[in-house]
Amino acid sequence: MTDDQASTPALVRRVAAEGLGAFFLFATVIGSGIMAQNLSQGNDAVALLANTLATGAMLFVLITMLGPISGAHMNPAVSLVAAARGELAWRDALAYILAQLAFGILGAWAAHVMFGLPTLQLSVKARTGLGQWTGEYIATFGLILTILGTVRSRREWVAPAVACYIVAAYWFTSSTSFANPAITVARSLTNSFAGIAPHDVPLFIVAQLLGAGSAAVVARWLFDRP
Amino acid sequence: MTDDQASTPALVRRVAAEGLGAFFLFATVIGSGIMAQNLSQGNDAVALLANTLATGAMLFVLITMLGPISGAHMNPAVSLVAAARGELAWRDALAYILAQLAFGILGAWAAHVMFGLPTLQLSVKARTGLGQWTGEYIATFGLILTILGTVRSRREWVAPAVACYIVAAYWFTSSTSFANPAITVARSLTNSFAGIAPHDVPLFIVAQLLGAGSAAVVARWLFDRP
Amino acid sequence: MTDDQASTPALVRRVAAEGLGAFFLFATVIGSGIMAQNLSQGNDAVALLANTLATGAMLFVLITMLGPISGAHMNPAVSLVAAARGELAWRDALAYILAQLAFGILGAWAAHVMFGLPTLQLSVKARTGLGQWTGEYIATFGLILTILGTVRSRREWVAPAVACYIVAAYWFTSSTSFANPAITVARSLTNSFAGIAPHDVPLFIVAQLLGAGSAAVVARWLFDRP
Amino acid sequence: MTDDQASTPALVRRVAAEGLGAFFLFATVIGSGIMAQNLSQGNDAVALLANTLATGAMLFVLITMLGPISGAHMNPAVSLVAAARGELAWRDALAYILAQLAFGILGAWAAHVMFGLPTLQLSVKARTGLGQWTGEYIATFGLILTILGTVRSRREWVAPAVACYIVAAYWFTSSTSFANPAITVARSLTNSFAGIAPHDVPLFIVAQLLGAGSAAVVARWLFDRP
Repeated sequence: MTDDQASTPALVRRVAAEGLGAFFLFATVIGSGIMAQNLSQGNDAVALLANTLATGAMLFVLITMLGPISGAHMNPAVSLVAAARGELAWRDALAYILAQLAFGILGAWAAHVMFGLPTLQLSVKARTGLGQWTGEYIATFGLILTILGTVRSRREWVAPAVACYIVAAYWFTSSTSFANPAITVARSLTNSFAGIAPHDVPLFIVAQLLGAGSAAVVARWLFDRP
Repeated sequence: MTDDQASTPALVRRVAAEGLGAFFLFATVIGSGIMAQNLSQGNDAVALLANTLATGAMLFVLITMLGPISGAHMNPAVSLVAAARGELAWRDALAYILAQLAFGILGAWAAHVMFGLPTLQLSVKARTGLGQWTGEYIATFGLILTILGTVRSRREWVAPAVACYIVAAYWFTSSTSFANPAITVARSLTNSFAGIAPHDVPLFIVAQLLGAGSAAVVARWLFDRP
Repeated sequence: MTDDQASTPALVRRVAAEGLGAFFLFATVIGSGIMAQNLSQGNDAVALLANTLATGAMLFVLITMLGPISGAHMNPAVSLVAAARGELAWRDALAYILAQLAFGILGAWAAHVMFGLPTLQLSVKARTGLGQWTGEYIATFGLILTILGTVRSRREWVAPAVACYIVAAYWFTSSTSFANPAITVARSLTNSFAGIAPHDVPLFIVAQLLGAGSAAVVARWLFDRP
Repeated sequence: MTDDQASTPALVRRVAAEGLGAFFLFATVIGSGIMAQNLSQGNDAVALLANTLATGAMLFVLITMLGPISGAHMNPAVSLVAAARGELAWRDALAYILAQLAFGILGAWAAHVMFGLPTLQLSVKARTGLGQWTGEYIATFGLILTILGTVRSRREWVAPAVACYIVAAYWFTSSTSFANPAITVARSLTNSFAGIAPHDVPLFIVAQLLGAGSAAVVARWLFDRP
């Protein structure tokens, strides 16, 4: 979504970029959460600061690096919106999403390997309730709006804008802003700082998709000039 | 104020952008304050660091995204200065300010909903005294100067400059730099980290408007070339 | 030093920009130090993190905003190097330095007023010894190198580069990197986090000027192409 | 690797730039680690946050400043990849690497002098095991990918991208991401926060070189358009 369709790379390279991006993004979210919790002596504010900084920095890197190849979605909500807007073939969107899920889960497992934890885990951390679902709705609404709003008139600044948006959203939403169905699934597979219990995943994803859809409608009216 | 008047979008879209911006900005300031206080175990320096990071990051996002639509004021002091400089019709400024207030308060309430707090609250946090009024005067003076100084010769850098200014001002002023009459009102409606007691609001706003006016005069002489 | 000499503004405006810049920079360094110490419960690492963040952010703002007017030196070492390189008249450099000192000290006092402290103070904080002088030498050497190195080929990035340099230097030097004779004087006038005992000022300034001079020589050879 | 070969400066200037960059980078990594540990009262998360911030900021400065001279590798893995890609003569790469090592070690010693520690030290900090080697492999893989991916299509953003990558990698890898054979050697010469026991150095370097090589292969396919 962030670069010319004119010279679109072949699908296999674009899907590889999505997979690589999801691998590094999800490894960063989960790995930095483990590191932060290991070092922070129970001070969760310091741990979340570190988790925020690492996630924002990695997002900036990945969007800058992979944006010219695949758009650097790394997020099924973004790929679905791109497809709904006719900027990505539905079949390509499906390939994107499968790569995001598969390589993202590999990223989660890579974090476990690096920190000497059992590879296969399930989170027991409850993340539920109207407040958190509202959080996910607002978080994903804002994320999609940020992408669609900046990509049209400030293309140079998409990467720092998305990174900064997530930095803010980690703190202003009660759910710490997953805002991404694929990372929600991957985070259910780690019983660490960033985890979410598997049975809480579906409603997070519902809230995310509703937020993304709402943002796509608002952005169509607000940003797409005649 | 940050983009060409040539292709000015219709007023309704500009006002919607101001409302959307104020909603996300105020939700971020208040929501990240709640999150930070929940997690920081009474260490207010860590809490303010998180509050600062979230606010600065969101400001960068909103100005980058909404600047091309409405100028991304999200602040009555900025809209009044723009009107006084003839860059915004007075009637439009009024519409901007009403949207900033109304949607900004909605943003405060959204933060409460997300964190499972009672929606309607009043702050009991005293913020008063000559030191803090001086702080608000200097904070708003610097904010307006930053906007007027960068918008003329470094337009690409307005968003990071404003964001960084507020990051610094959260720490170098004794009031943590509200620098915005609308957010001062909205922050009186939350009894959390970012709150201000309602009876302390008027003098904060007076100091802010004096600071904004002084900056407009200085900027006219310092930045506006013949 | 950071912008065209072609349309140099009149000296009074340039000196005003230096004064304004020093006021805000020094108020930020000292004010954020006071705030950080007030809130950090004796955890000096958290306090210095906040002090670092505020200082770096404000430097970015001031250089972006005031660079096109005066070069945004806010530092006698920078003005002296500019004069030695023939980029600033010696008489103008003197005016710059006087404004940096006078308005910078006003900035220190403004910080005291904002935080309700006695305006006139003297620091009792010893900062001395070979390690710290070496720190000031290296810190100022690197600062001047950063300015002269980026201004020639990456002019757009001077402001973030100088800001980031100081962010790093606050932490990698034992003296927390004053690297500025004017702020060294101003910081002797505050008995707070950022203070330095007056009798330790002269050798700090000597080390800074030696570092600046060395950097000017190295930069002449390394960066100035034939 | 980051700028035109057309007007390549003479080798001596390029090697001087590599030495200067390594001096400041390694002094920052080690010096900020010492400062952070001195101030953080045993809270290693806060210490690593400070170490991260200083390192990322300095990387941004050095790549911005020295990139136009030498490419600002400051890392033998980067120089070897550049040589393997035919972008740097092998003989020049050798000179680069020697300068990185020699001046980088001087930077480590300068940090010791600044903080009043014995100049010559050996670390006793064990950094070993499959998790950490995997960390170094992934960290270096990502670093090389970031450089090769951004330098081709987003050259303006190489410096912030590399800086942000290391910021993230300090947290998401179990080894805190050395990702640089020269700094691994230099860090064995300091018994402080950033240290690594000498006998753990060789396998770190092996993992780094394997990661760099893998990334070079992937980047050739993913980024180098026909």
